[in-house]
Amino acid sequence: MERIPILKLSDFLLVTIQVDMHDRLALTLQEELTAKIVTTKARGVLIDISAMEMVDSFIGRIIGNIAAMSRILDAETVLVGMQPSVAITIVELGMTLPGVRTALNVDKGLKLLRDSLGKDRGEDAYGGLEA
Amino acid sequence: MERIPILKLSDFLLVTIQVDMHDRLALTLQEELTAKIVTTKARGVLIDISAMEMVDSFIGRIIGNIAAMSRILDAETVLVGMQPSVAITIVELGMTLPGVRTALNVDKGLKLLRDSLGKDRGEDAYGGLEA
Repeated sequence: MERIPILKLSDFLLVTIQVDMHDRLALTLQEELTAKIVTTKARGVLIDISAMEMVDSFIGRIIGNIAAMSRILDAETVLVGMQPSVAITIVELGMTLPGVRTALNVDKGLKLLRDSLGKDRGEDAYGGLEA
Repeated sequence: MERIPILKLSDFLLVTIQVDMHDRLALTLQEELTAKIVTTKARGVLIDISAMEMVDSFIGRIIGNIAAMSRILDAETVLVGMQPSVAITIVELGMTLPGVRTALNVDKGLKLLRDSLGKDRGEDAYGGLEA
């Protein structure tokens, strides 16, 4: 069962990473995610890493790549659910995650994306989750 | 990385199963999910199985157990993202999923839960996703 599901949540896509990432899986994820951004016209991507107890530079690069690809396709990336130990590792390794915003959990990440999109459009109220 | 993350989405919890389920993992999931229903006062549980290409009676029983436990804790369970091949297998194996409702994807599952809760409360409009 080597596939990372990409879930559509209203205007956004949610990716929950819970298996160990390797080259081929990362490539598949990038392909599927970019395709899905286009087909669903998603405006944002939430990457949940709450199941990850450690990160390394490989994972960091994949997340950075996903963010860069999404941005070109006009979708913002928000990293959610980071565990304290992961935050410590990221700083200690001197990793930077360019173009990636973070939020404590999915709820807050969704709010961040909605607020940010609302601002882009010059609107205060952005629609709910209705499909 | 043997943990299935449980994500809070407004009043609901979202579980995405993407690793092969085994006894210990299923037990951990049941414990964590029931604990999280209580702490977050969740009213519904969405189980996404879009990454699963096959099911067996073991998985069916786990999903049934989760639904039964959630119901006791006053939360409805909706199974989302089932692949066509999985639907075929479920019928061919003669499996029943008592107390489990299904929806095509997370968006529709959320709508189902919101509609169902709105009805319970005698309300038409149920709040959005705001945290």
